[in-house]
Amino acid sequence: MSLLCVRVKKAKLQGPPDKFNAYVTLKVQNVKSTTITVRGDQPCWEQDFMFEISRLDLGLIVEVWNKGLIWDTMLGTAWIPTQKHLPFRGGGPW
Amino acid sequence: MSLLCVRVKKAKLQGPPDKFNAYVTLKVQNVKSTTITVRGDQPCWEQDFMFEISRLDLGLIVEVWNKGLIWDTMLGTAWIPTQKHLPFRGGGPW
Repeated sequence: MSLLCVRVKKAKLQGPPDKFNAYVTLKVQNVKSTTITVRGDQPCWEQDFMFEISRLDLGLIVEVWNKGLIWDTMLGTAWIPTQKHLPFRGGGPW
Repeated sequence: MSLLCVRVKKAKLQGPPDKFNAYVTLKVQNVKSTTITVRGDQPCWEQDFMFEISRLDLGLIVEVWNKGLIWDTMLGTAWIPTQKHLPFRGGGPW
């Protein structure tokens, strides 16, 4: 089991500032965390999240959503591989 | 453009009732709606949702999540095709 630590920082969104009320979801395996919802075209979340993961090959799914009255609209999504962010795990002097 | 109407009714979850605080998300194209969160192993949401959809081939993604303090855990997911639920659209007497 590995521990994945993620900080969701901020975004620059394209469009009029009053159009946006955005939040971010992080998905790892069958687990999901969600940031607070922040207004404006340059939302700043600065929130930390931790996940226990057993499979490093599945990566992290990041979704940015705009909160609406009836439904939420996806602004963007990204898949971030987790394998290359592995900490060094050696038995040597380093 | 077509209108998709969905009613989220209820679920029977496997496990101790106090383990669950569940909600459902519905995703169509880049749009998402979420039910309220209901406690217990037999949550009853009975909520209606509507979506405007341009592509009928993409279907509806239903996800059931258990709300947690730090993260939410997926209890189940299903993809429901929307094409076969199309209303009759003919020019005939029916």
